Formats: sequence, structure tokens, C-alpha cells
Amino acid sequence: MQPRAFLTSLFQAAIDAADPAIALKPYLPTPPKGRTVVIGAGKGAAQLAQAFETLWDGPLSGVVVTRYGYGAPCTSIRVLEAAHPVPDTAGLAASEALIAAVSNLGPDDLVVALICGGGSSLLPSPPKGLELGDEQALNQALLASGAPISVMNAIRKHVSGIKGGRLAAAAHPARVVSLVVSDVPGDDPAQVASGPTIPDPVTRRQALKLAESHRIDLPAKVLRHLQTPAATAPVPDDAQFSAHEVHVIASASISLDAAARLAETQGVPAVILSDAIEGEARDVAQVHAAIARQVARRDRPFQKPVVILSGGETTVTLRGHGRGGRNTEFLLSLAQGLEGVAGVDALAADTDGIDGSEDNAGAFVDASSSARLRDAGRDPMADLDNNDAYSAFASIGDLFSPGPTGTNVNDFRAILVR
Amino acid sequence: MQPRAFLTSLFQAAIDAADPAIALKPYLPTPPKGRTVVIGAGKGAAQLAQAFETLWDGPLSGVVVTRYGYGAPCTSIRVLEAAHPVPDTAGLAASEALIAAVSNLGPDDLVVALICGGGSSLLPSPPKGLELGDEQALNQALLASGAPISVMNAIRKHVSGIKGGRLAAAAHPARVVSLVVSDVPGDDPAQVASGPTIPDPVTRRQALKLAESHRIDLPAKVLRHLQTPAATAPVPDDAQFSAHEVHVIASASISLDAAARLAETQGVPAVILSDAIEGEARDVAQVHAAIARQVARRDRPFQKPVVILSGGETTVTLRGHGRGGRNTEFLLSLAQGLEGVAGVDALAADTDGIDGSEDNAGAFVDASSSARLRDAGRDPMADLDNNDAYSAFASIGDLFSPGPTGTNVNDFRAILVR
Repeated sequence: MQPRAFLTSLFQAAIDAADPAIALKPYLPTPPKGRTVVIGAGKGAAQLAQAFETLWDGPLSGVVVTRYGYGAPCTSIRVLEAAHPVPDTAGLAASEALIAAVSNLGPDDLVVALICGGGSSLLPSPPKGLELGDEQALNQALLASGAPISVMNAIRKHVSGIKGGRLAAAAHPARVVSLVVSDVPGDDPAQVASGPTIPDPVTRRQALKLAESHRIDLPAKVLRHLQTPAATAPVPDDAQFSAHEVHVIASASISLDAAARLAETQGVPAVILSDAIEGEARDVAQVHAAIARQVARRDRPFQKPVVILSGGETTVTLRGHGRGGRNTEFLLSLAQGLEGVAGVDALAADTDGIDGSEDNAGAFVDASSSARLRDAGRDPMADLDNNDAYSAFASIGDLFSPGPTGTNVNDFRAILVR
Repeated sequence: MQPRAFLTSLFQAAIDAADPAIALKPYLPTPPKGRTVVIGAGKGAAQLAQAFETLWDGPLSGVVVTRYGYGAPCTSIRVLEAAHPVPDTAGLAASEALIAAVSNLGPDDLVVALICGGGSSLLPSPPKGLELGDEQALNQALLASGAPISVMNAIRKHVSGIKGGRLAAAAHPARVVSLVVSDVPGDDPAQVASGPTIPDPVTRRQALKLAESHRIDLPAKVLRHLQTPAATAPVPDDAQFSAHEVHVIASASISLDAAARLAETQGVPAVILSDAIEGEARDVAQVHAAIARQVARRDRPFQKPVVILSGGETTVTLRGHGRGGRNTEFLLSLAQGLEGVAGVDALAADTDGIDGSEDNAGAFVDASSSARLRDAGRDPMADLDNNDAYSAFASIGDLFSPGPTGTNVNDFRAILVR
């Protein structure tokens, strides 16, 4: 077996499972008697719209919003761009355009909502009495609070004219099919892009309580809005959504499952540690290394041979001025933890194909990486402290550079222990 | 099942397996025709000597060295104290006392070496031409290099008159039985306390090469010493050691195995993630939380019910001015990752019984911990940023305080997922 070819094939399987065209195909709705309108939001919305156009057999119109620079040419669907992560007025216009696109539809019409990560910022829509600045201030307060994403979204949804199912409510009485690429732990579609087409059972009073218990320092105008009885800004009515469909078509979990299946067809048992690992990249790597060492030396907690898969999104606290992203940073720390551990090979890569600001998606690591780095004149510890993992792996020719993949389900990590 | 009682019983099993008396008993050597001399070094050396005296049936003499304040009264064995982690002149005297104790023995005599973590600093013994200050400077340079412990020890052993088997060489022709409590990943007894009774195959030339490839900035006098042909300071001869015995009598791994066995007798399958997890406590916790969530939600990578065990030693980067040690810090981060994940209970604790500077060994965490902390008026995120995990868990009565245990095999973590 060629370990790097094997690991690359697993990455490819993960990417394929998240490819817009491949992911959309099994979930194409039956064409309606009436019109088909596509709406969408998120960093991958343009690619989803493109793929949908290619797959769809019939007339089509619609509008999606993506991040500045993330557009892709579509024929029938308008692609708007707006600011991420801090919403701007282009986002306001996009929210209005999406609501307009689904307004005045009939029961024979179909709305296909293409929802993916980043959509929340791209769809600002302050409710009556509030302005864009209020929504920006709220976002600031939420991020500063450190509250879980589910709590932040519960509050956001009550300070929005589009989130928490309000976009689908505007489409009533048309049928709405939501096709969701998840970037959230647990893959709850209501949490992706704050669920513009998915009603949320959290009441306004509950949202206010959550803000209190998490000590979120809400802007005064937002607080007053949340204290206003909900009657003046109705929460979507469940009855409107009874005929709606929601499918998670791609996610870290689905991609890791695909990689695991491929590994097993090649005779290598696979285990998925988690699809949602967060934390500082170098420390997350130390835990991965400790587990891999234990497998290599003790055949526990998994028996060799095995490929250990994990997903999620690590973070990097900048300490230096080098080049590299969170996956190469993870790998440089992993290389130190695996030095001299025979029979171990690893690949970590961003599934969008670009790790940080450079041209690589990630890199390969094995038992000899640290020694080879030193032989090449690098100091692995110093490179890690200088956040210069890209330069380190470039010096020994171990970068992994498949190019942009056109999809994104966060990080992909695979450690093969033979 | 009562989760906290169950987790406490696992901790107790781990502690019992590392208890000096329980750990020594199966490895007591057969009494010799001649004299029995006990030597020892490390933070737990006095407790090991005490336990050995209690178990040993026959005449006995000897000397051990431990850290200032870590002594314990012995009858036949002298207990010396010296400085740790920076060696002092009391350590020099201790090294001389240990070598004197084993000198002039005959082939019918028995030397029992009780070796545990911390012994390296407690046994300074600069070779001819070097002084204590040179060994201190070397230690400084090694720690600053960030080189792996195995590399540091390889060099230390060549700049010492006692390490790397030289103490056992001094005991020749007596039989030497080394009983080792491991505090190192992988439990290589030659790495514990720089192996004073265990010969090391690394040559002086190889040690010098390691220093070069790891770019260790050796003090000039130490460098000259390493460049001197080994003939003037011979490495111990393997033939001297052929009749010696070495046993790892306690370690994180042995303790985790004991906890795992107890869990399984109680009908709960156990998995050991690793006995040597290092890294920033809060990030190590995020990985543990991600794995536990995956088990709770997806029955992978392990099937429920299961108790996930791990050992090792995390670190805490001080950011604030609160109270708490690395285990409570780990737990406060874990609590946030496990909020609302039903059926999960966790215990993390220092096996010496004291986590940091307070009176607790650790604390308990479950799905409701974060909410209960907020109800008690705490802000879990802020407490974590202020390194105030002790105060947080104290406020909800979830500290775990069994008192000092008299042993130490680093951290013990157990996460039960039902």
C-alpha cells in the first residue's frame, strides 16, 4: 500500500461526497405544476446554484447571495454578493431580493432553498424599528459573549425578518424544499445560516431568557425589541411548513462517512473520532498524536491497521509571522508527537482546497517528518511558534495541493496506523 | 447506576494500582545471601522506601533522595532531600551518598533501586572537569530547546557520573533490581529519572549528533566534554548488567488498565484513549468533548454505554488570576462542550490528590454543569479565561476532594456516556 495515495483517495472521497452536483442529485424535487424558484445563501451558494441549474430539467428563476468574490456564473439564477462576516447594505438588498423572489407564489409553485454556511451574515434583515447597525451591534455582542452557536442563533432569529423560517413563511403557500450543506456540529439544519427556511420552536420569551442566562450584553434597542410581545412581529406558524421538506445534502459527517467506506473497501478499518472537533490546532494535534501512538504501540483504543478520521474546525492563535493555515499548523504539531512512531502516516487538509492564505490544502506527515525538517535546516518547534508550518512542509516537499475544490465541509484529517 | 460513585470507584482503582505498597508487592526480589541495599530517587522515593521497609523481611540499609518537603519517616533507609527542578548542592551530596551506598558490594549482595519521576533533577553528578553550574546550564539549554524528553535524556546521560546506568555500574558486581514508577509516555524505564540504573545504548558521538540536529545551544564546557573521546569517561559496559532486573511497577497505563478492568466488571465497557495526552487543558477538553458528543449522538467511535479513559499531563497557560489546576481547567472547558448532551458524566483528577494549589483533586461534570454554573451566578467562559475553575466548581459543590493519595501517575480522566 502507498500510504499517501491511500490518504489522498480518502480526501477525494470526502470532497466528492460534498461536491454540489453529486450531493444535490439524490435530493432533486419533483418538478412542480407551477414555477420553480431557487433561493440561496452562503459561501457556497453560487456553486450550489450552478450545479442545480445543470441538473434541473425545466424552467427556473431565482436569486442567491454569496460572499464577495465567491460568485460563479449562472444562467437563470441571479448571483448577488455581500459582506461576510460583518453584514453590509448589499446584504440588506440581498435579503429583500430573496423575499421578493418568493413573494406572490401559489400553491403549485416550488421554492428550492440552497442553504450553506455563512448565510447568516449574508442575510441581514432588521425587523421594523431596527436598523442594520443594530443587527451588527447584536452580532458583536453575541460573538463577545462566547455563548454556544445554538444560543446565538436563537436570539438572531428573533431579531430578523428573514431568519428562523421567515423566508419560507414569505413563500407561503408555495412548497419549499430546503437543501442544506451543514457546517455546524450535529448537522441541525435549523442552525445553518440561522435557518431562513426552517421554523424554530424557541419563543421570543425563551430567546430573551437565554440572553439573560448567558449574560449577553444586548444592545438597548435589540433588548427592547425582544421585550416587545411577539404579536407585533409574529413567529412563523407551524402549519405553513407542514408540506416542506428539509434535507442535509452534505456535511462533515457525510464526507467522513464516505471516506470511511472507501477505506473499508480497501481493507483498512476506519474510525471517525468526531466530525466536529474544535480547539487550538497544535493542542488538538497533541491529542490526535497521543491516540495514534497508543494505537501504534498498544493496539488501543483501536486495533491496527486502522485509519482514524476526524473533522471540524480548529483555530490558530497567531504568535508569529509565518505562513500557513490551521491544517498545516495541526500537522506540524502532529509531526512532533509522531516522531519515530513507525507505521504512521497522516493527511490533514481544508476541504475547500485552500488552507489559510497559501495555495495548499494541507500536508502529509509521517514518523520521519520532524527529522527531515531538521535535516532541511528547519527548526520544527520554532516554525510552530512562528506559525510558519507552510514554509516548513514546503521545504521537504510534503505539501498537499489539490487546488480549490468548490465545496467546503471544514477540515479533513486522516491518520493511518499500520 | 450512580455515575459519580462509579467514576469515583474507577479513580480509586487507578490510585490503588499506583499505591507504593500494592505496586511493590508483586515485584519483591528474592532475599540475597549477602546484604540488601535500597537506593532511590524521585518525588515519590520516600513513600516507596517506606512501603519497601514494611514489605521486606530481612536486614536492610540504604539511602533515597526526594524533593524538599516530600520526605517520609523510614527506619532503616536514610531519606535525603534536595532541590527540584533546578538541582542544588544537596543533590550533589545525595548522588555521592547513593554511589557510596552501592560501592564495595559483592556478587551475593542485592541492590534495590526505587526510581520515580523527578529523580533526574535530584541526582546532579557532573563528570570530572565539570561543575554543578555546568549541569544546571545544560538543563537550561535542554529545556529551552524544546527537544523531546528522549533526546534531552540521551544528552544528560553523557554529562553525568550517575545517570544512564552509571549508578548500577558502581554497584557491580552486586545484583541490581530496579523497580520503576513511570511518569513518561511509553513507560520506557530508561527514561524515568534519566535511568540511573539502566544502561543506555546511545553513544557519546550519537548524543553529540542529537544535540546538533536539534540545534541545542550547549554550554561550551559541556560541548567540549561531549567532544572528548568516551574512553576518558566510559559508558557502562553491557556485561555488567546482564543479571539485572527492571520492572515498571506503576504507571499511568497500569492505573488506567486497572480502572478499565473495574468498569468492565461493573458491566461498563471501557476504552483507553491514551495514557499520555499532553497539550493545553482547555483544548484537550474540546477534543474529549467532541468525541463524547459523537458517542452520545452517533454511537461512534465507541458504542454506548462506555467509559472513555485517558491519562497524561495537560498544561495550563495562565491568563487570569483565579484558582484551580489543570484538571479543573480541563473540566470547565469540557462542561461547555458537553452542555445539554444527556447521559454524560465526567471526572478528571490529579492522581496525587491535589490539582494545583487547592485542596481538591479535580471535579465532576455533566450535561447540566454549565447551566448550573450560570444559575449560581458564575460565567463559565469568563471563569475559564480567568483560570478560576476551582471557584466555579466550588460554587456548585462539584469539587472532588479525596485528599492526598501518596502516589502520582499524572492525570486521570473518565467520561461515562450512557
